[in-house]
Amino acid sequence: MSSSSFPISITVLGSGTSQGVPMIGCDCPVCRSTDPRDKRTRCSVYITTPEAALLIDTPPELRLQSLRAGLNRVDAVLITHAHADHIMGFDDLRRYCDLKNGAMPVYGSKETLDRIAGIFPYAFDPTKRVPGYVFVDVHAVDSTFPLGGLQITPFSLPHGRFLSTGYLLQRDGEKVFAYMNDCKDVPTPVRDAIRDVNCLMIDGLRDEPHPTHLNVSEAIAISRDVRAKHTYLTHLTHHKSHVQRESELPNGIQVAYDSLSFKL
Amino acid sequence: MSSSSFPISITVLGSGTSQGVPMIGCDCPVCRSTDPRDKRTRCSVYITTPEAALLIDTPPELRLQSLRAGLNRVDAVLITHAHADHIMGFDDLRRYCDLKNGAMPVYGSKETLDRIAGIFPYAFDPTKRVPGYVFVDVHAVDSTFPLGGLQITPFSLPHGRFLSTGYLLQRDGEKVFAYMNDCKDVPTPVRDAIRDVNCLMIDGLRDEPHPTHLNVSEAIAISRDVRAKHTYLTHLTHHKSHVQRESELPNGIQVAYDSLSFKL
Repeated sequence: MSSSSFPISITVLGSGTSQGVPMIGCDCPVCRSTDPRDKRTRCSVYITTPEAALLIDTPPELRLQSLRAGLNRVDAVLITHAHADHIMGFDDLRRYCDLKNGAMPVYGSKETLDRIAGIFPYAFDPTKRVPGYVFVDVHAVDSTFPLGGLQITPFSLPHGRFLSTGYLLQRDGEKVFAYMNDCKDVPTPVRDAIRDVNCLMIDGLRDEPHPTHLNVSEAIAISRDVRAKHTYLTHLTHHKSHVQRESELPNGIQVAYDSLSFKL
Repeated sequence: MSSSSFPISITVLGSGTSQGVPMIGCDCPVCRSTDPRDKRTRCSVYITTPEAALLIDTPPELRLQSLRAGLNRVDAVLITHAHADHIMGFDDLRRYCDLKNGAMPVYGSKETLDRIAGIFPYAFDPTKRVPGYVFVDVHAVDSTFPLGGLQITPFSLPHGRFLSTGYLLQRDGEKVFAYMNDCKDVPTPVRDAIRDVNCLMIDGLRDEPHPTHLNVSEAIAISRDVRAKHTYLTHLTHHKSHVQRESELPNGIQVAYDSLSFKL
């Protein structure tokens, strides 16, 4: 989408809502679809720069997502929030610790990291580091930090009774990629911060309103307001097929799917 | 294997050790194998009787295991222990709660259930029951209980610094199936209790000894000692292919694999 000082590669590992698509025991047309784009594991994104390979979130399917994408390297992990569909594959980072032979840097809000430490205490206790198991270097972040040659800015987003964290990735001051997979709104200061971003990937759960997620029309309105050059909807339900959703979207807005890959 | 008063169907949903097979980023011959029996998700077993459908453990891949097996019903869940590879799919029971329109009975040791309640507190708090989310009826068990027309006996098994729970399923007093997927030994009183069982499915991690798991020769010795009529090894690593393992085993002992299904 843009040629610049160095390329950034984005691969969508998962694009589904909390129950995934297909849903267990559902025989709706979308859950029975044979289109691979209608098979949505839980949300995760893999990002590579010349310096580093970054993972956003560790959903339950992380191991199988990693195998499907042929991954053998993760240098750091960003977490959006501690809901089950975004963190229950955290223990599978053990293999990436093995492969890098060291601790995994994990970034997120203090609240999110505290919650993960309560669930996976062995990974966070430096006195209990055991080769072959996951162990992390904790980075509680609330302002821009450098990583993999990028400048990454975390933003708090309303997500029901919780806050999730969205991330803006900048390359030499160029707003390249904004990722906000679970949110009910994007506050004005965040909109101002990401305005004119090259690519926005944003919660677009379904057509109907939802108490804790953006629906499609809300996501489109935000995309327009921030003047994203390109937008992908993610965290999608089984209510519509990939093909049907895409046919209903305006120019410049598409639907993410598992294994979608592009460069920025 | 036995015709009796009613049939019991066993389906292996997962048969792999904690990192699964293939392992992320491993290019050994087994991890590159195209034999579907060398694709091992984390251990889980699905058991049906005329009265009920039971699940043992909720590994991270539970959703995809459920889809692969075409499951649309779970009436109760038995948990062996709270290590990540056995419980991190617990939230995906939400769909089975939806399908049954009620709470999910979950059985296990008090220690195991307390640990799961710490990880998924919303599922265990009756004041927070929300339609669409998982919520459970807790059954901390340490002696024989009736379920699905069976009599089920939990046994504590040594598993490193922890205990795991093995389960013996009896049909009208007939010892039908014993399942012990994570253990370093089977204590004498447990061996006495399961002696002459129709089918034993037991930890047989790999050939080399392991501090917290049975290796293949130890598992074979236990199978012989308890005079199991048939034995399946499970919780297997990537060290050998399915075909090679099976070729090395004595009569009456086989290797479990994902999607293996049989009646007892």
